[in-house]
Amino acid sequence: MRVYNFAAGPSMLPLEVLEEAKASLTDYNNSGMSVMELTHRGKHYEPIHNECISLVRELLGVSDNYEVLLLQGGASTQFEAVPLNLLTSFEDKADYIVTGNFSSKAYKEAKKYGDIALAGSSEDKNYTYIPEYTVRDDAKYLHITSNNTIFGLEWNSFPDVKMPIACDMSSDIMSRKIDVDKFGVIYAGAQKNLGPAGVTLVIVKKDLLEQANPLCPSMLKWALHAKNNSLYNTPPTFAIYMMMLNLRHLKKIGGVEAIEKINREKAKILYDFIDNSGFYKNPVKECDRSIMNVPFTTPNADLDAACVKGAEAAGLVSLKGHRLVGGLRASIYNAMPVDGVKALVEYLKKFEQENK
Amino acid sequence: MRVYNFAAGPSMLPLEVLEEAKASLTDYNNSGMSVMELTHRGKHYEPIHNECISLVRELLGVSDNYEVLLLQGGASTQFEAVPLNLLTSFEDKADYIVTGNFSSKAYKEAKKYGDIALAGSSEDKNYTYIPEYTVRDDAKYLHITSNNTIFGLEWNSFPDVKMPIACDMSSDIMSRKIDVDKFGVIYAGAQKNLGPAGVTLVIVKKDLLEQANPLCPSMLKWALHAKNNSLYNTPPTFAIYMMMLNLRHLKKIGGVEAIEKINREKAKILYDFIDNSGFYKNPVKECDRSIMNVPFTTPNADLDAACVKGAEAAGLVSLKGHRLVGGLRASIYNAMPVDGVKALVEYLKKFEQENK
Repeated sequence: MRVYNFAAGPSMLPLEVLEEAKASLTDYNNSGMSVMELTHRGKHYEPIHNECISLVRELLGVSDNYEVLLLQGGASTQFEAVPLNLLTSFEDKADYIVTGNFSSKAYKEAKKYGDIALAGSSEDKNYTYIPEYTVRDDAKYLHITSNNTIFGLEWNSFPDVKMPIACDMSSDIMSRKIDVDKFGVIYAGAQKNLGPAGVTLVIVKKDLLEQANPLCPSMLKWALHAKNNSLYNTPPTFAIYMMMLNLRHLKKIGGVEAIEKINREKAKILYDFIDNSGFYKNPVKECDRSIMNVPFTTPNADLDAACVKGAEAAGLVSLKGHRLVGGLRASIYNAMPVDGVKALVEYLKKFEQENK
Repeated sequence: MRVYNFAAGPSMLPLEVLEEAKASLTDYNNSGMSVMELTHRGKHYEPIHNECISLVRELLGVSDNYEVLLLQGGASTQFEAVPLNLLTSFEDKADYIVTGNFSSKAYKEAKKYGDIALAGSSEDKNYTYIPEYTVRDDAKYLHITSNNTIFGLEWNSFPDVKMPIACDMSSDIMSRKIDVDKFGVIYAGAQKNLGPAGVTLVIVKKDLLEQANPLCPSMLKWALHAKNNSLYNTPPTFAIYMMMLNLRHLKKIGGVEAIEKINREKAKILYDFIDNSGFYKNPVKECDRSIMNVPFTTPNADLDAACVKGAEAAGLVSLKGHRLVGGLRASIYNAMPVDGVKALVEYLKKFEQENK
């Protein structure tokens, strides 16, 4: 029986996508080889690679002013790649808005490579709101994290600033329409909405490619990968194939606009239930709530644990909250169907009745 | 029909391994989830991760003095991680022996991070022999590349030096017995003998972990990944699963000792045929020839191209030589069966008769 998987990432993928991958696992397209066995410089793999990049462009509306890169190392590697690519010297300035655990990590890592300032933070209230911010006029970029996977906090409208915005979109990319032109750099680990773990998407404005720190490792340098169409070294071919299939599926069901509607419906069902229950609680400021990650608590930690355990027995898995916040967390990424959220609400109702 | 795939990497995997992966692609171990959907911090994934690391230890005979890490970014990322982890300051010294394209790249990248000297090179004769070398007594490490994928050149006995050896083993790891204790660091991209592209193995002596350059990006720092059992950030879970299955298969068929015997048999069949033909030629000094990658030429470039084309029609694919050497190249990694090499020899015989 297929379960509803609420994991924060790696997370659910559409069954249709998995089945297509399964069919080509020992013989891709009558090549006599698995997708995994294809050389990355051959006639079979090349169309997969290029279709993946084209689908990113089409689905997000990425103009020719930007490069689309498929890299390795996860968003964590980009925490350091961002300052190393955008700050030429250690005196160059950049500002960070900290709205959770990963944006805090990005801020700390950047400090090694420039004059980095905190433009705003909501740490005082455990990252339950999007803070006010002040940026320095001469900062070379402003870094934000569009969605906070752990605390369930999301930017609904992005900062209006003069410098380029560098944005970690790992946990909400492709979940809602965005205006790419508002950003200098967008990056995202694939394992939430794009595909399996092992590939990292970077979208970067072409005019930002030539200002890297001379000490930036070549493999972290966006310009090098851009020049080589992300084929400078062997790419993670199978992960890119899966991402391509998943994006093809997203296009088929109507693209980002269609999935945003579904995502907002799912989030509304769950938040409405939580807010009306009196038993479950979500601490995030209403207008800043994430449509992807919904953390919540029962009246106490023992009930939290019992609730997670009972859910698992009912085929609703990976609902345990992150250790930094406790409680439960439902990650309801693109691949989670509305029925999965409804099943979760039904289970939570029953659990409340039995434990009130 | 399954073909014999002679690609230099990504390359062949045992059919049995692919079939097992296929079976678990939509439901792993009755979890109701694909392997790709498993959270990396859960009860299903953890045993996969740990078994992969244990199998590396067991198959290569890695003692407790070493850490075994599963990273991302390929050997190319390690070209920079090696000096950044082993040289504390930009004045620290390291020596490099250059025996091909990738060792030359490793040497060039390292120059950014220390006082790097060339200890030996066979560039003068297009990398067809293992050169003599001179190392500096105060070099903190000596870097070599155990097997040269492009030119088909392999170290048969390793340098006897006082400093730690850092070795790129991407294209011959697990192909033959080695004494791990002779090395300070061994690294390898997975896509030749270990698994699919997207995971990088690093084996590093524990006493070398605390000397990194303060500017080393955290994500390139071996000590950080060692401390977190390669789970500091989301690992490439599916690639690690495939590597685990592939190593389990290697263990089942007798381990490195058994595969080395088969690999030497395959290489002998092919080199004997080439040397006796008078039509085909391999330029590498006999005692330094690779048992993994066998480059060879016909009497001219037109015949080379015709030979590659005819082979493909006969189900012997990806035999085109690297653009740096031309001609043909047969990569005969662990997963290539003896029958594949015999089929290649039969084809080459026929091609010779028709084109002499």
